[in-house]
Amino acid sequence: MKKIRLLTPGPTPVPERLSLRMAQPIVHHRSPEFEQVFARCREGLSWLFQTKQDVIQLAASGTGAMEASLVNFLRRGDEAIVVDAGKFGERWGKLAKSYGVNPVTLKVEWGNAVDPGAVAAALKEHPNARAVFVQANESSTGVAHPVEKLARVTKNHPAILVVDAISALGAFDLPFDAWGIDVMVSGSQKALGLPPGLAFLAASEKAWKLNETADLPRFYFDLKRERDNQRKNQTAWTPAISLVEGLDESLQMFREEGLQACFARHERLARGARAGMQALGLELYSKAPSAAMTTVLAPQGTDSEKLVKHLFKQYGIKLVGGQEAAKGKIFRIAHLGYFDDFDMLVVVGAVERGLKDLGAKVQLGAGLAAAQAAMAEAGAPTGPQLRG
Amino acid sequence: MKKIRLLTPGPTPVPERLSLRMAQPIVHHRSPEFEQVFARCREGLSWLFQTKQDVIQLAASGTGAMEASLVNFLRRGDEAIVVDAGKFGERWGKLAKSYGVNPVTLKVEWGNAVDPGAVAAALKEHPNARAVFVQANESSTGVAHPVEKLARVTKNHPAILVVDAISALGAFDLPFDAWGIDVMVSGSQKALGLPPGLAFLAASEKAWKLNETADLPRFYFDLKRERDNQRKNQTAWTPAISLVEGLDESLQMFREEGLQACFARHERLARGARAGMQALGLELYSKAPSAAMTTVLAPQGTDSEKLVKHLFKQYGIKLVGGQEAAKGKIFRIAHLGYFDDFDMLVVVGAVERGLKDLGAKVQLGAGLAAAQAAMAEAGAPTGPQLRG
Repeated sequence: MKKIRLLTPGPTPVPERLSLRMAQPIVHHRSPEFEQVFARCREGLSWLFQTKQDVIQLAASGTGAMEASLVNFLRRGDEAIVVDAGKFGERWGKLAKSYGVNPVTLKVEWGNAVDPGAVAAALKEHPNARAVFVQANESSTGVAHPVEKLARVTKNHPAILVVDAISALGAFDLPFDAWGIDVMVSGSQKALGLPPGLAFLAASEKAWKLNETADLPRFYFDLKRERDNQRKNQTAWTPAISLVEGLDESLQMFREEGLQACFARHERLARGARAGMQALGLELYSKAPSAAMTTVLAPQGTDSEKLVKHLFKQYGIKLVGGQEAAKGKIFRIAHLGYFDDFDMLVVVGAVERGLKDLGAKVQLGAGLAAAQAAMAEAGAPTGPQLRG
Repeated sequence: MKKIRLLTPGPTPVPERLSLRMAQPIVHHRSPEFEQVFARCREGLSWLFQTKQDVIQLAASGTGAMEASLVNFLRRGDEAIVVDAGKFGERWGKLAKSYGVNPVTLKVEWGNAVDPGAVAAALKEHPNARAVFVQANESSTGVAHPVEKLARVTKNHPAILVVDAISALGAFDLPFDAWGIDVMVSGSQKALGLPPGLAFLAASEKAWKLNETADLPRFYFDLKRERDNQRKNQTAWTPAISLVEGLDESLQMFREEGLQACFARHERLARGARAGMQALGLELYSKAPSAAMTTVLAPQGTDSEKLVKHLFKQYGIKLVGGQEAAKGKIFRIAHLGYFDDFDMLVVVGAVERGLKDLGAKVQLGAGLAAAQAAMAEAGAPTGPQLRG
């Protein structure tokens, strides 16, 4: 028998309660029954985004919401500052070019966070830039960019701050209104524990103001049309009904746990994973590790791809390796979503066993003990943990 | 106790087998396990589209695929013939304008099919038109447009024929290669019996040729990028994993039933529904009724919206009324998807009861007897009906 365990940064495991909800008979979307569900989701998403603004739902995966965050606010020929510190930062640049927006790319070495001063300097050099695009958590490196500081930089500049929080929302604090973020996008298959296919987007007053003069073509991702419909608990196009039902249930689970308790849990798991890896003599890859995932350099002489494959084949434990520049060098442990302390023991234990199997020098149990201690020290789970 | 029964043209009921499959633990999309599923879906979709071309999957609802069918093949300033015979035909025109394509709109009275001669004339008058946009089944009216004849018209013209088969694919015959259709789009929540959120698109050689010079901006819906990825059983962006799993199961159910048997079943149900309604003295709304749905004029003095609401409130039977021009005038019975003869008895019986409740003159049982006779005459289900 081999139990399959997914510890990847998206998709993340779907809680049984969500699966059961989504397996209920489908409801027609043009009906008062669905509108009630949709209304609860709207309210729950605003709570999760910590905003008074509308959070718009889109039937698409995260990249669709990234596209929406560009085409609804910019004009052809506009300049935009793009923070490129990994695979997803790079995507902002490609996206901008596809629509005739000129990216000013701030290349940041993989594994590092952007310096807010560099963004401020770029905006000074490009006073006509209309947006700064960044990731809250760059999934290819496990880096958390300093969103709060970046928001302070854009606050007194005409540019809007656009944050890809696809793998960050719900894992750590990103208070949209309090920090002054202008556009934030996320997706269903990360902290929310749903299958992919649903994306979310909130926009500030400053961003909606830009929307009035934005001239990039759009139809499926037209946010103004969606906002007008969604305020009536309807959608312009057919919504991903089963995922919306699951979202309703997922948001309910978040409410039961509490937002701060949820962030504290992610932080505790991150500490456990980091402590476990470091106790095995491994080096963290991210210089600004996020609470959503832990990225680790494989030991000298061990191909991380080989480790990842071995763990799945031998033990059914699914991690992911590195992408592009980090391929073969790193492996990534996700702890965003439906995970608790004991899942971290599983993953640390698996890494110990896997490395040992591949001939690396590790002391079995050292990682486990360190992870256990770090999580216990971070305090017991607070409040009712009803996410089961 | 009130049993809820969905008889709407999308979403359609999800077979239990598909729900169970989609409730299985989620699989990572960048894995050999998922690639196997994806490969089977690719093969099954080509079989269902009756084409040797790639059928591309998109994480979006149908309108997303409609957008893809425009932005990947046309140039800014191009002319395109738009068949506007209802709400979905109208959408083609709006979509075209959003991207700077000039629609030449052929307005067709609601309830009627387009005359292929009118399309030929429009192409003669607009020799630079690069596309003809049409619905296979116009869901707002229940009209089947003459796709085969339209394909003969576009065959010797530079324009491509773009067919919205969202509510038609799998319900009646639309052999993509044999008829010479150029682009055809569909969605998951219709005959395939899945929740919405997955869309499909096939393109002919002629269309791919146009793709080489197409200059409309696109990123999320870039079909060339998707095709290159999907040939390797991957997707450019995160796919709607659970729906793809469900698709694999749905296509398997189609194979077990057989394509011709499936079309025959839809035709038989359509005959039953039409005979039932006519035996109640009701007039069909569609002058070219499709096998996907039956649209019916409510009797004089009866508001169809009122009937639809009453049927759901009193009996849990969900039909839909008319949209825009047909609002209050018609109701629509869907029989595309997971339906059999006995579902038609249920819906005809419900309409009889509902009309009687609202004071219309109907002879209880007359519709049922006629539906029963028409379906029996159309022949018993052929082949193994394993869609359970």
